[in-house]
Amino acid sequence: MDFKIYFLGTSSAVPTKERGLSCTAISYENMVAFFDCGEGSQRAINEAGLGFNRECVVFITHMHGDHVVGLLGLLQSMSMNRRERKLEIYGPKGIIDFVKLNREILGFGLTYEVHVGEIRPGLVFRHPKFLVYAQRSEHTNDSFAYVFEEAEKPGKFSVKKALRLGVPEGPLWSKLQHGGKVISPTNGKTVRPEDVLGPSRKGKKIGISGDTRPSKTLLSFFKGADVLIFDSTYSDEHAQNALENKHSTSREAAKLAKKARVEKLILTHFSARYRSVSALVRQAREVFPNSIAAHDGMVYDVES
Amino acid sequence: MDFKIYFLGTSSAVPTKERGLSCTAISYENMVAFFDCGEGSQRAINEAGLGFNRECVVFITHMHGDHVVGLLGLLQSMSMNRRERKLEIYGPKGIIDFVKLNREILGFGLTYEVHVGEIRPGLVFRHPKFLVYAQRSEHTNDSFAYVFEEAEKPGKFSVKKALRLGVPEGPLWSKLQHGGKVISPTNGKTVRPEDVLGPSRKGKKIGISGDTRPSKTLLSFFKGADVLIFDSTYSDEHAQNALENKHSTSREAAKLAKKARVEKLILTHFSARYRSVSALVRQAREVFPNSIAAHDGMVYDVES
Repeated sequence: MDFKIYFLGTSSAVPTKERGLSCTAISYENMVAFFDCGEGSQRAINEAGLGFNRECVVFITHMHGDHVVGLLGLLQSMSMNRRERKLEIYGPKGIIDFVKLNREILGFGLTYEVHVGEIRPGLVFRHPKFLVYAQRSEHTNDSFAYVFEEAEKPGKFSVKKALRLGVPEGPLWSKLQHGGKVISPTNGKTVRPEDVLGPSRKGKKIGISGDTRPSKTLLSFFKGADVLIFDSTYSDEHAQNALENKHSTSREAAKLAKKARVEKLILTHFSARYRSVSALVRQAREVFPNSIAAHDGMVYDVES
Repeated sequence: MDFKIYFLGTSSAVPTKERGLSCTAISYENMVAFFDCGEGSQRAINEAGLGFNRECVVFITHMHGDHVVGLLGLLQSMSMNRRERKLEIYGPKGIIDFVKLNREILGFGLTYEVHVGEIRPGLVFRHPKFLVYAQRSEHTNDSFAYVFEEAEKPGKFSVKKALRLGVPEGPLWSKLQHGGKVISPTNGKTVRPEDVLGPSRKGKKIGISGDTRPSKTLLSFFKGADVLIFDSTYSDEHAQNALENKHSTSREAAKLAKKARVEKLILTHFSARYRSVSALVRQAREVFPNSIAAHDGMVYDVES
């Protein structure tokens, strides 16, 4: 199954030769959820082969230019590609005006419908296969972190039990696997899904911090995440900057990841001052060994 | 002397792997004039080594996203680089609102003063070393073409004449070269600049079409240009698209260049449908042999 995280822009504030501005995509089967859309996102999306016509939804963490300006070009390029599917965009207060006023000033029509919504903490998007939740983060302006949570998956199908209950291989198996009752053609008895399926499995949980200080609210929001993508703008050396500019050091990200008992920490949103982020990774691993650094073009397979 | 044209974005409407959105810079000594600022310009400017703290001025041809959205990131990155010099931005109606409203919505302060002006045809910028003129072009919205015209340069200094008139090498030569009269220390006679300088030389003229159909107005505006940078969105095959979308084919650009008796034609703003633009160059050269295609990162030395 396709369930991947695409790191499309991993620099903080200004792009560098190697890193573009914030954009992360989670692809789930045929759907894509974008988190932030900094300048240059449309080019990175295109290069990653994600395309402009897929079913997708955009979430903005906060209304700073380096996280949202790329939305304008993305909207227009989707139109140039004759997109027809509706596009939903969610973000903090200001996102509606941003899209509306720029569409007026730049005079661009679109080939598809756009819905822009200003969110509050809680469930912000419901898809049959996943849910997206928002929670307040701690940055210099109104800002949100997100959790992408895969829906519970049905338990493992037991071939042995199905055969024992008189249900032969074929369409009846599929019906059971999808939660339907069937009548055994062998013995006429009713077989229910719970007779042949193991306990349902928890879906994967992915956390996206956006720009933020670590906080208790976020600690609880990201609890038990399989993957946590967290603001790591600074190294220990610049901890004071993290405090002043309401960002996190990689060590702070790691401390939160450890306390939240997440499975894997992916550091991102690096200050452009670092040519190499190896010191930031080292500092994070001292606290939470299962930490890696994102880089532009990196694809992380959630299923593997 | 540094007098160069930097092609920082040469794609039309949507960026490709190889080409970013419209941005062209003319560097003149320590000054840079930018023409258009599509998404991704700040990254291209940075990679070209043009820096964010130089004396510079921005001209926008028209208020379409692919020509102006990059301004937002550029403004912010200049601020991140603690720019202190004032920045002037000129463009069509809408440019003032675009900057003002986005600054409000994205809440960004700047470390420097910004002046944004809506222009009319005529002289729009006066620098001691060059002038910039605007003229109406023919696109789908209110749009301008620009001419960058180097100021007249003093005539060639004749060492022979200076020595014959009793002016020895040294500061007096410099004074004469800069238009000042001097008294010969040898014979006490007044020597005027015209006694030792040849006829003043016409400055170089560079035309930038922006997005446009060819027109009589532009033909006369670009008359005798040393370099003409012209909309070449399409090849012959897509001439109908050029007509409908108010762009030009490379052949149309070449016809105008020929009639305007320009020295060199540089084709740019290519439709993303062309993997290679060699057909467009060939079609232009059939009409005007001194045609070349721009590519991202290309630097053209105007002096050479």
